[in-house]
Formats: sequence, structure tokens, C-alpha cells
Amino acid sequence: MDIYEKSLMLHKQMRGKITVATKMTAVNQEDLGLLYSPGVAEPCRRIAIDQQAVYDYTAKGNMVAVISDGSAVLGLGNIGPKAAIPVMEGKALLFKNLAGVDAFPICLDTQDTEEIIKTVKYLSPTFGAINLEDIASPKCFEIEARLKRELDIPVFHDDQHGTAVCVLAGLINAHKVVGKDLTESRIVINGAGAAGIAIAKLLGVEHILMVDKEGIINRQEPGTMLNDGHREIAQITNPSNISGKLADALIDADVLVGVSRPRLVTKEMVSTMSKSAIIFAMANPEPEIFPDEAKVGGAAVVGTGRADFPNMVNNVVAFPGIVKGALSVRASDINQAMCLAAAIAVANSVPASELKADHIFPEPLNTKIPCIVAKAVAEAAKQSGVARANQ
Amino acid sequence: MDIYEKSLMLHKQMRGKITVATKMTAVNQEDLGLLYSPGVAEPCRRIAIDQQAVYDYTAKGNMVAVISDGSAVLGLGNIGPKAAIPVMEGKALLFKNLAGVDAFPICLDTQDTEEIIKTVKYLSPTFGAINLEDIASPKCFEIEARLKRELDIPVFHDDQHGTAVCVLAGLINAHKVVGKDLTESRIVINGAGAAGIAIAKLLGVEHILMVDKEGIINRQEPGTMLNDGHREIAQITNPSNISGKLADALIDADVLVGVSRPRLVTKEMVSTMSKSAIIFAMANPEPEIFPDEAKVGGAAVVGTGRADFPNMVNNVVAFPGIVKGALSVRASDINQAMCLAAAIAVANSVPASELKADHIFPEPLNTKIPCIVAKAVAEAAKQSGVARANQ
Repeated sequence: MDIYEKSLMLHKQMRGKITVATKMTAVNQEDLGLLYSPGVAEPCRRIAIDQQAVYDYTAKGNMVAVISDGSAVLGLGNIGPKAAIPVMEGKALLFKNLAGVDAFPICLDTQDTEEIIKTVKYLSPTFGAINLEDIASPKCFEIEARLKRELDIPVFHDDQHGTAVCVLAGLINAHKVVGKDLTESRIVINGAGAAGIAIAKLLGVEHILMVDKEGIINRQEPGTMLNDGHREIAQITNPSNISGKLADALIDADVLVGVSRPRLVTKEMVSTMSKSAIIFAMANPEPEIFPDEAKVGGAAVVGTGRADFPNMVNNVVAFPGIVKGALSVRASDINQAMCLAAAIAVANSVPASELKADHIFPEPLNTKIPCIVAKAVAEAAKQSGVARANQ
Repeated sequence: MDIYEKSLMLHKQMRGKITVATKMTAVNQEDLGLLYSPGVAEPCRRIAIDQQAVYDYTAKGNMVAVISDGSAVLGLGNIGPKAAIPVMEGKALLFKNLAGVDAFPICLDTQDTEEIIKTVKYLSPTFGAINLEDIASPKCFEIEARLKRELDIPVFHDDQHGTAVCVLAGLINAHKVVGKDLTESRIVINGAGAAGIAIAKLLGVEHILMVDKEGIINRQEPGTMLNDGHREIAQITNPSNISGKLADALIDADVLVGVSRPRLVTKEMVSTMSKSAIIFAMANPEPEIFPDEAKVGGAAVVGTGRADFPNMVNNVVAFPGIVKGALSVRASDINQAMCLAAAIAVANSVPASELKADHIFPEPLNTKIPCIVAKAVAEAAKQSGVARANQ
């Protein structure tokens, strides 16, 4: 039985992966009076007077909604809200198992941008944070930006920012391994979707070229700009404003980050890159180039999105701790400073003594990582003025 | 420390009453591959092909959303969605503790009828049933009716139908105690809100007079009709089409069901009722008449909404089993036949040997009751053609 059949059987046995548990059990009339009517009227009255008291008397402060419209699920595409539930339950399971964060999956029966925004706003009172998941690009940008502006709780689109944090963490450690300075590296990002754009923005280094199907994004060809994300990328990357294809971009590059399609990169292309090149080839289900080929081409460090190769670039090391940290200080936002702090914390969680070309990331299921990340994120929230409570 | 202070402290210690638990823990890389990527793709693919498979591979089949807009919470009125959360968490706790049903509270940041309807439809894929709670009348009728029509999962407004089931169960047993026939009783319902209208419709007996602030609802005074509910009541009650006030309605009545305001009824009014009168005085926080006064007036059986008197009319004996039964057969609706079956099951759960004037209801926290009720409800769902699975 392969992993898919096994997974199917397991899901059927358990009837899904999450359940609602109670923090106390009502066994007698007194419990009923305390946990429900009439006693429950008192926390209600307190919250009615002071809305922030909702964090004291309800589960809101540790509760995140995992929200998808099922429009871009894993590599499966637009499979709709019901078929997306197993992924969102899986995400909820990881939040809970790894970081002790209560997470509840909500799959929406609408794929309209405005309706999604309204619905998430309407259901937000119960939650301390919103995790957007597997929503297609480019509408995910508008949905995230609007919700961040209009809600007073953090909104986090993991496909963008979780991925960006992991890539940055990996690049920090990969640069330690090859002895280069990340801020001076020439970086090529292939793929200008949600993840690629978020990576470019979080890296914040000078020499980035972003490449999409049309070639290197620049400020000469506005006709190829698909959306606001692309227009912003044209402004913040490609300082020399060059044109060309992926192969042109890769010449003398120090880093390739692939968030595009399988098998786009050859070992010949890698061999034109700078010495000790770093390649994160994260296309699904097959990478832009397999690690062995990349190494033949001269790459020093190679990561992929797969568990069966070293250096899996896996959001699991980032999102539980980021959201836990934000919740711990009742943050109103998850901002770039917090994502940066998370990336540095993830990178530093690999001891210098263990760091090597085939081991740049921490173990994904080590529950110490979310604690380390959460602490750094909470501190960054305080420093950047979005924390509303001490831990 | 009184019950309110105690409840407040307990809520603060626990930070709310519910938490999300996982049915399995991901401890190693293999678990991660089965519970999350890549294995989780298989249940997703199966559901994408056959939408009903969502019941096999996700938590949907045992998951109910407890939804409120905070517009009519307990006796506290329109306190808004955040202040309503403690009540909805309490409801979720009772669903879980009493019937093993997973229930998740969602308090909506809108009180607009159309927006509530749309939002509930959009968030429905994750849930096997919808429990509407503490939504003000009359908009609760429109919301419930539309959702029942437009969703393929059961929609249950507990304030209406849970209350109606309890009242009917209590009346069945009270009639056994006084030796009268419920179908021939003359019944007065005082209060024409959500609960009153649902009670009148579920009782389905010939001699009902419904009384609101203006007096007995009849077919002569359409100007006093506030909404569709009232218009329907005018058609199905008051066969002789009489007019008058509450005091007029009570003359020779066998039953008074009060879902109105405190202290509206005097012992003199009770003394005009028929011999061995039955009175359910459910106004909050004080009943329409206190039990001792009602008995001085000649009442044989008295129930209230309070735990500190005998015969508390408490929805807790009904809603967990009703929803559990509907979920157990993947019912597409909770219809009158199922509510009727629930009422009979609740009534019959009190053994004949224990039945007496001060004991007409089962113990609210007896976890056998929801099982008995669920079984009856599931059978009624099958008989009435809304079941989509065997238990």
C-alpha cells in the first residue's frame, strides 16, 4: 500500500483529523450554572462593556481560523472547498501538535474576492488570528491586503509569507555554509506567483532578478505586468533594469530560488552560475532541477520541496511559531519585522556544529522550534508596535 | 462569591471553554506524510470526484456550527458578537459533553439578515449541521427558513425548535400526571416571539390561543400582525376567532405556556383556568408567575425556566440529541417529524414510576437522554425521507 492509499485509509478510520474538546466537563447542576446559564451571563456582560475582555474569557486568544476557498490546493489546483478540507484539517493538526495553537478549518463556498473578504471579516470575532491558505494568485494579494487593513487581528497568508520565511532562513544558513554574504548575493527568483513575490519582498537585498514565463521582470515592458504584485516587483528588483530569459538571469547568479514548474533548469544552466551556487528548487511534484543534476552543474547547496531529499524547504518550521508568537502578545498584525525575526530564529535554531550543505534546516517536527520562533516573533511585535499585551 | 463571580473566575482561568484537539499526533516524518503533504492529496482527490465522500474523510459529519450574531443573547439583549462568545462556547461544551457532537462557536460581526444568510452558506462546507442561536426575532425566521431551503445540511434554530420540543415533552408528561388528553386541551401561549410561534406549530393541537401584547391573535385584526410568523399563527390557532386579553384567554384553559415577561400572571387569573391546570412560566429572569402562587391559584403542574424550582424547561434535554440524531444519518434537514419524535423520546425517558407533578422532565445532564433522543430522531429522519445514510 503506497502513502496515498495509507493516508486515505487513515482519514476514513478517523473521520477527519480534528475534534472539538472542552476544557472542563459539565457533570452536575452546579457546573451547568457556572459554564452555561445563568453564570455565563457575567463574562458576556464584561465583554459587552470592554470588548478586549474577550481575550480573558473566551478561547479567542489562542484560536486561529485556517481559511481557504479551495481554489489552489497543494498541486491539485481548483478542487473546491469540500475537497480542500483534508488539507486545512492537516494544517490545524500541525498548529496544535507543534505549537499548541487551536486552529479551526473553514472552507468557503465562494471564490469571489469581495465575498471572501466580507465573510472572513464577519466570522473574525471568534478568532485571534486568520491563516489564509491555498487561495489562488493574484486574488490572494487583494484578499490579504484588504483583510490586514480592515481587521484588528493578524492575517497571515502562509503560502506567501510562511514560504518566504523558510526560504530566507534557508538562505541565511546556506550562505554560512558557502561563506558568502547574503546581502551581496545575486539572487534569481523563478516564478512570480504568491510565494515568489513574498520571497523577493522579505529578502530585501539589492541584487534580485525575478523571472516569469515572459522572462526577467523589468521596468521597460509594462505590457507584461499581470497585476499589482508584478508592478511592485518591477520597482524593487532588477536595479540595472535588464531584459532576458531565465538562462540569461542565471549567468553569474549566486542563488536560484525556484517556485515555478518542474524541470525548467538544466545542469548546463547551473554551470553558468557563480561558484558555490545555492539552489532552492521547490516546484511540485518535481523540482525545477533534481539535486544530483544541480550538483553536477556545480551547485554547493540544494534544497527542494520534497521530504525524500535533504534540505526540504518546509513551512512547517515557520507558521506554527509565527502565529503562536503573534497570538502570545495579542498582536494586531504579522508584519515584515516579525517575519524577518522568524526567519533568523529558524536559521539560528540549527547549531553551527550541525550546519552543513545537506543540513541547513531544523527538523520539521521538533516542537522546540515553534517556541523559539514564537519568542522572536513576539519580541519583534513589541519592537514594531503591534503587540497589545505582554506574554 | 456568587455564581456570577465564580463563573467569571472560571472563564478567566480556562481562557474560554473549548479547544481544538487532534485525532492523531504527528510525531515523525511518516506521520507528516500521511496526515499532511503528500498523502493528504488522496482524500482531497476522492472528495473532488465525489462530494459526498467529504463525510468519509473529514470531521464534517460530526461537526456543528453554533452561530449567533449576538442580537438576542440570553436575557441580555443585543450585546454583539464578541460578548456572545461565552454563551456559544457553552453551547458547544454541552453538545460535546452530553452527545459527543463536535460543535464550534462562530459569532458573526454583522446583524444584517441577508449578510448572515450568505455568510452561513459560505462557511457551511466544513459543517454537518448549523445551530442558530440567540438571533433576534423576527429576522431569525427569515434566516432559518432561507438557510433550510438553500443548504443541504440541517439548520436548527434552538431558541425556536429546541424550546418547542421541551415544552411538548413537558406537556405530554404533565397531561399524564393530571390525567388529561393533550390533543383536547385548551392551550394558551402568551408571547408571540420565536419560541411561542415554534411551540404553537409543533403542538399542532386544535385549541390554541396565542396572546401577544395586543391581546389574542385572531383573523379580524390584521393591523396587529407584525410579521409572517404572526400571520401564520392567525391561520392555525384560535378556531373560534375570538378577541380579548390574556385574562380572557385563560378562562377555562387547561394549559398556559408563558414565553413572555416576568409577573404578568396572577393567582386570580390562574383560578379562572380549568381544574388541574398546567402552567409553564418560562420568562427570564423571573417567571410570569412563581410556582407557589400558581399552585395557590389551583395549578396542578408548574414548570419554569429556572434551575431553582422543580420542572425546569431546559433545552439541554433536547438539542444535543436532536442534532446528534440528524448527523448520525447525514440528514438534509431537521423537520417537524424529527422534532415530534424528539419530544416523545424526551417525555418517555422519564419512567412512569418516577413521573409526578414535580418531576416531569429527565435530568438535564443524564448522557443517556441524547442517545435515546438521537435514535428516535434518526428513525424519524429515515421515515420522513431526509436521511442520506444509515447510522
